[in-house]
Amino acid sequence: MTGTVAEAGEFGLIAAVSERLPQGPEVLIGPGDDAAVLAAPDGRVVATTDVLVEGRHFRRDWSQPYDVGRKAAARNLADIAAMGARPLALLVALAVPPDLPLSWVLRLADGLREEAELGGASVVGGDTARADVVFVSVTALGDLEGRAPLTRAGAQPGDVVAVCGRLGWAEAGLAVLGRGFRSPRVLVEAHRRPDVAYDAGPEAATLGASALVDVSDGLVQDIGHVAAASGVAVDLDPEAFEVPQALRDVGAAVGTDPLQWVLTGGDDYALAGSFPAGVALPLRWRVVGVVGTGEGVTVAGRPYDAPAGHAHFR
Amino acid sequence: MTGTVAEAGEFGLIAAVSERLPQGPEVLIGPGDDAAVLAAPDGRVVATTDVLVEGRHFRRDWSQPYDVGRKAAARNLADIAAMGARPLALLVALAVPPDLPLSWVLRLADGLREEAELGGASVVGGDTARADVVFVSVTALGDLEGRAPLTRAGAQPGDVVAVCGRLGWAEAGLAVLGRGFRSPRVLVEAHRRPDVAYDAGPEAATLGASALVDVSDGLVQDIGHVAAASGVAVDLDPEAFEVPQALRDVGAAVGTDPLQWVLTGGDDYALAGSFPAGVALPLRWRVVGVVGTGEGVTVAGRPYDAPAGHAHFR
Repeated sequence: MTGTVAEAGEFGLIAAVSERLPQGPEVLIGPGDDAAVLAAPDGRVVATTDVLVEGRHFRRDWSQPYDVGRKAAARNLADIAAMGARPLALLVALAVPPDLPLSWVLRLADGLREEAELGGASVVGGDTARADVVFVSVTALGDLEGRAPLTRAGAQPGDVVAVCGRLGWAEAGLAVLGRGFRSPRVLVEAHRRPDVAYDAGPEAATLGASALVDVSDGLVQDIGHVAAASGVAVDLDPEAFEVPQALRDVGAAVGTDPLQWVLTGGDDYALAGSFPAGVALPLRWRVVGVVGTGEGVTVAGRPYDAPAGHAHFR
Repeated sequence: MTGTVAEAGEFGLIAAVSERLPQGPEVLIGPGDDAAVLAAPDGRVVATTDVLVEGRHFRRDWSQPYDVGRKAAARNLADIAAMGARPLALLVALAVPPDLPLSWVLRLADGLREEAELGGASVVGGDTARADVVFVSVTALGDLEGRAPLTRAGAQPGDVVAVCGRLGWAEAGLAVLGRGFRSPRVLVEAHRRPDVAYDAGPEAATLGASALVDVSDGLVQDIGHVAAASGVAVDLDPEAFEVPQALRDVGAAVGTDPLQWVLTGGDDYALAGSFPAGVALPLRWRVVGVVGTGEGVTVAGRPYDAPAGHAHFR
């Protein structure tokens, strides 16, 4: 596919994208009509939406369109998993400059589709428009498969806090890119493309988790939402985290404590939740703290005063 | 509420918007968690998404934020109705300039909420980001209430084509605004804020419609999608349309045949469908054509060669 989005036209663009999107068995009506129709046998549907803006959430010179698609899908699929649900479908609203190569949009669609497939979902619909910068809004739908939804509000004093997935990798990768480097490659790749264990969401529900969240803005901030919604305090144990050698190396090189990235780095979309003490957690879940009475998040009993939350480009 | 979006901050903005959004009985978990959870007792869910970009779909000097919200919701709710479904919920992804007044976003939320209420839906979730211009992406979910979905593909030769709702009003209103006028007010208002009979979608299904679409890009173009998907031809009767006096007046003033607006004007979100000949249609449905063998859309038996489709600003 050569040429620009403007040359393809709206219908040409939609046709070229749609033919790259196979539909799963839950899709009763896929792209091409006024709306999609999905099976929701549970009798409930989980829904979340998210927006990525070029220059703020990604840069076209730092991330390939395939990676932007992967990340745009991952952010939303992780929110579905964080409710303890199984991803079902994505809808994508896309605004792009008319001179953008059509191939850029098709690679974005490839990334969306492949990340959706990792979560077990289909891309069932979308819309396109023109704009001066790329704007990607993804809506994800999910299926609770008969389970109760896992909100942020159920953590109880005495619970343990556990995490499944990477923490700080994407933020360290962004620090690398921001200094003009391209390695360590594993961290740069982590910034470009999260690696999310979607099935850990339903697993957490089955294990009896009392609350669950995905870490999009940094663990301290996101587990803080659980603490606030549950009316509890969370204390994180800095010794409990795995800080991979790559993070230590980059931290030493750029003068940042790598634990800061682990505690406050966003965009890895790990799942973090609270579980009754004594529950036997599979190996991929790491206990990193405890729930107590009170409010707020502490690290080793003290307020954590590193710059909290995820830093966007500007 | 005074100040800018940047002064309110992301969480302040979300809190201020959320408190304006009452939740209907189908909403099991509303805004504030990783995702919303909705009842879907039918066991299926209808889903569609759409994006509006400032400068392309609306101008801040021509439309108030309340009207942008109304229209952004209406576009998507109409797509749900066009499947024969009842609107259930909206999710809204919003990117705005940091110096935008917070009051602008709150009025947008008011418009989204009020249009959603007209359709019987709640605004259950969303996301915000910064951008240089306003982007509003809305996803609508709907409930088929046990009925079969009404696609574009069921029209049969011998069916009649009928329309429920306004045609050409919004386009004529845009023509008025584009020439620097503010009246006739009814047309300017129609451009700013569609008036959609959402319950006409389920009604069409109950009446036995064979296909249904909402008119977002102009009747000739949109009923053309029905013709293409159904493998039939549609002939529209130019004498069958009601052309209101306001359209005639503006047409005379600006030198445009008002029937052109009726046949090709977008943004009114009328519902247009095919029904078995002889079906007794309620008064709000107007028969405007017939389905035959062949392909394409004709007007009085001839190709319609006025500029087809909805003209955006640029």
